[in-house]
Amino acid sequence: MNFNLLKTDTHSNARAGTIETARGTIETPIFMPVGTQATVKNINQQQLKTDIDAKIILANTYHVYLRPGLEVIEKAGGIHSFINWDRPMLTDSGGFQVFSLNDIRKINEEGVEFKSHLDGSKHFFSPERAIDIQRTIGADIIMAFDECTPYPCEYDYAKKSMHLTHRWLERCIQQFNKTEAKYGFEQNLFPIVQGSVYKDLREQSAEFIAKQDAAGNAIGGLSVGEPVEEMYAMTELVCNILPKNKPRYLMGVGTPANILESIALGIDMLDCVMPTRNARHGFIFTSQGVINIKNQKWQFDYSAIDEAFTPEYSKAYLRHLIHTGENLGAQIASKQNLMFYLWLVKEARKHIIAGDFSTWKTKTIERISTRL
Amino acid sequence: MNFNLLKTDTHSNARAGTIETARGTIETPIFMPVGTQATVKNINQQQLKTDIDAKIILANTYHVYLRPGLEVIEKAGGIHSFINWDRPMLTDSGGFQVFSLNDIRKINEEGVEFKSHLDGSKHFFSPERAIDIQRTIGADIIMAFDECTPYPCEYDYAKKSMHLTHRWLERCIQQFNKTEAKYGFEQNLFPIVQGSVYKDLREQSAEFIAKQDAAGNAIGGLSVGEPVEEMYAMTELVCNILPKNKPRYLMGVGTPANILESIALGIDMLDCVMPTRNARHGFIFTSQGVINIKNQKWQFDYSAIDEAFTPEYSKAYLRHLIHTGENLGAQIASKQNLMFYLWLVKEARKHIIAGDFSTWKTKTIERISTRL
Repeated sequence: MNFNLLKTDTHSNARAGTIETARGTIETPIFMPVGTQATVKNINQQQLKTDIDAKIILANTYHVYLRPGLEVIEKAGGIHSFINWDRPMLTDSGGFQVFSLNDIRKINEEGVEFKSHLDGSKHFFSPERAIDIQRTIGADIIMAFDECTPYPCEYDYAKKSMHLTHRWLERCIQQFNKTEAKYGFEQNLFPIVQGSVYKDLREQSAEFIAKQDAAGNAIGGLSVGEPVEEMYAMTELVCNILPKNKPRYLMGVGTPANILESIALGIDMLDCVMPTRNARHGFIFTSQGVINIKNQKWQFDYSAIDEAFTPEYSKAYLRHLIHTGENLGAQIASKQNLMFYLWLVKEARKHIIAGDFSTWKTKTIERISTRL
Repeated sequence: MNFNLLKTDTHSNARAGTIETARGTIETPIFMPVGTQATVKNINQQQLKTDIDAKIILANTYHVYLRPGLEVIEKAGGIHSFINWDRPMLTDSGGFQVFSLNDIRKINEEGVEFKSHLDGSKHFFSPERAIDIQRTIGADIIMAFDECTPYPCEYDYAKKSMHLTHRWLERCIQQFNKTEAKYGFEQNLFPIVQGSVYKDLREQSAEFIAKQDAAGNAIGGLSVGEPVEEMYAMTELVCNILPKNKPRYLMGVGTPANILESIALGIDMLDCVMPTRNARHGFIFTSQGVINIKNQKWQFDYSAIDEAFTPEYSKAYLRHLIHTGENLGAQIASKQNLMFYLWLVKEARKHIIAGDFSTWKTKTIERISTRL
C-alpha cells in the first residue's frame, strides 16, 4: 500500500492524497460507509459502486466472525468475493464491539473473553486471534486489536489501558508479520492511538504508534461521548505527531461538520454509521441542509429530496415511506445520505487542491448544518 | 383503453394480446407486482422499471387512502407523480382490505363502515366513494367496489353477497360515468365476478358482468383458501362467459404454477403479493426451482442465486442476509422473485404466439416447482 501526499492546505492541516491498494486507488480525504454485517444497511452493491461511488467500505470483524462465521467467508475466498465487492475494504479488530456489546466479559493481558450477544456462546479474542480472523476475512486494511476506553474514563484506567493497547499492538504486529495474506491481495495493518482525552497519554500513544512505521495510522477512542472540542483537540495533537507520509484514519467520526473539521486537522480517512443509521430514522443530509423527514411540514412538499442526489423522489413521498415503515424509505434515505457524505469529502479534496479549503469549509458547514 | 387479442392457443384457452393504455402498452398475459402502500416492498422504482421491467403495478386503495391520504395524493397530481412511476397502475377498490383487516365493520346496502386498523378512526366506503377515491388516486385501471366472500361461504350468503356486489356495480358504473379522470389520463373501470365456489352463482355473476361491456373484467373471491381445483374450475367457467375481446383479470393469484394454469384457462392479468412476501421470508423462485434460503444446505453454496436473474449474489450471501435480518436480503430476494414472475409471463406469451404453450407449460411447471 502506498500513500501519496499530493497537497497540504496552507491555512489548515488538510491534505489531499491517494492511497494505492491492491484493489484500486482511494483518493483522500475519504469517507468509508460502514457495512456492519457484510452489507451496508439497505444499500445494494451496485448502488454502492455506481450511485454512491464508495471507494472503500468497512465490515465489522465481531459481527462477521459471529455471522456468517469465518468458515463461510474463507470458503467463499474472502469477504470481497462473498459479498461481491471488488474495491478495497477495511475491517475493525472486533475490540470495539467486544467492549461495547457485551456485559459479561473477562479482560486480561492475554485478551478478552466474551459471550456472543446472539446466543451467549463463549469466545476469546486476543491480538493474535484478531489478526488471524482479519487475515481470514480478507480485508485490504486490518486494524490492531485495542481497548477502546469509554468516556468519561479515569486517568489511571486510561493510562493502564493505553499501555495494554500498546503491548497488544506489538503482538498484533508480530502476528501480522508471521502470517500472510490469504487470497492473493496485499493486506495492511493499521495501529490505533488511544489515551482517552488526556493530552499526555495521547502524545505518548501517538509517539508509540508513529514509531511502528505502519502503512497507515488510526485514532481510536474518540467520538464516544466526549465534548466535540476535546475530540478536535486530541485529533489535532495526534495528527501533529503521526507521520505525514502515512494516511491518518479517525475512527467512528462523525457528523458532516465533524468530518470537515477533522479533515482540517489532518485526517485522511473517516467512517461512521451516522449516514445510514440517521437515514433509517428519517434524518436526511442534503446539500442545502438537514431534514427531519418525519416532520409534518414535509407532508405536502413535492420538491426533490435533494436535486443534487435524489431528484427522482419527493420529500412528501419519502416522508410517507418512513412514516409507514416501508423499507424503500430507508433505502432512498441511506443512498441520499451516503451520496451526500461521499460528495462532501470529494468536494473537500477539490478545495484542498484548489487552495481555498478553509473558506469553503466555513461556508459549507454553515449551509449543510442548516435545519430545513 | 384497447385490448388487442393477437393469438389464442389451439390446445388451451391461453391468449396473447396487448392492452393499450394512456400510459403505455401492456403485453398480455401480464403479472402485476403489488405496491400495497404506494411502494412495491423493498424495490425502488428504477429496479422496477429496469431490472424487473414491470409494465403495470398495483396499489391498494384502502392503504393509500389511510396513508398518505387522498389530500397528499391529489396535491401531488396523482399517485404516478407521487411515487415517480410513469407506467400504468391499477388500484383495487379497498373492499378486500375493509373486509379482511377489520373486525369491527357494519355492512349494509349503502356501503361499509369500518375502523382504521391504524388508529381506530371511523370511515365509510360506498360504491360511489370507492370510485371517487380511485379517481383521486389516479390509477389507469380502477376496480368496482365488491364484497369478496371468504372461504368457506354458505351458499345463501354467497348468493346474497353476489347480488349486493351486482347492485353496487351498477352504482359504481353510474358514478364512474358521472365523473372524469382527474389528471389528464384516461381511467378504466373493471367490474368483478363473485359467487364463491358455486357454479350457478359464478355463471350468473359472469353473465351479469359480461353484459356491462366494461373495458376489462375481473374475477374476485378466489385464492382465498379454496382447493386449487375449485379455483381452476371457477376460473374456467367464468372465462368461457366473459367477452373474448376484453382482458380478464384474476385477482390475487398466485403461485407460478397457478399463474400458468390460469393463463391456460384464458386469464390475461394477474397480481399477487407472493413474490415479494415470500422473498422476505427467504422463499426464492428461480428458473431452476424453488429455494428456502434459510436451509442449512445453502450455507456454503456460492453459486449464483439464479444465473438468469441474480448472477451477482450467491445463495450463501443471500442466506446470510436473510438470516441476519438485513434488508438487503429482502431487496435481493424480492427483485429475484419479481424478475422471475415477469419472465414467466413473458415466456408464456412467447410460447402462446409460437403455438407450443401447452407442452412448454407442463415442462416448465415441473421444473420451476422442483424443491432445490
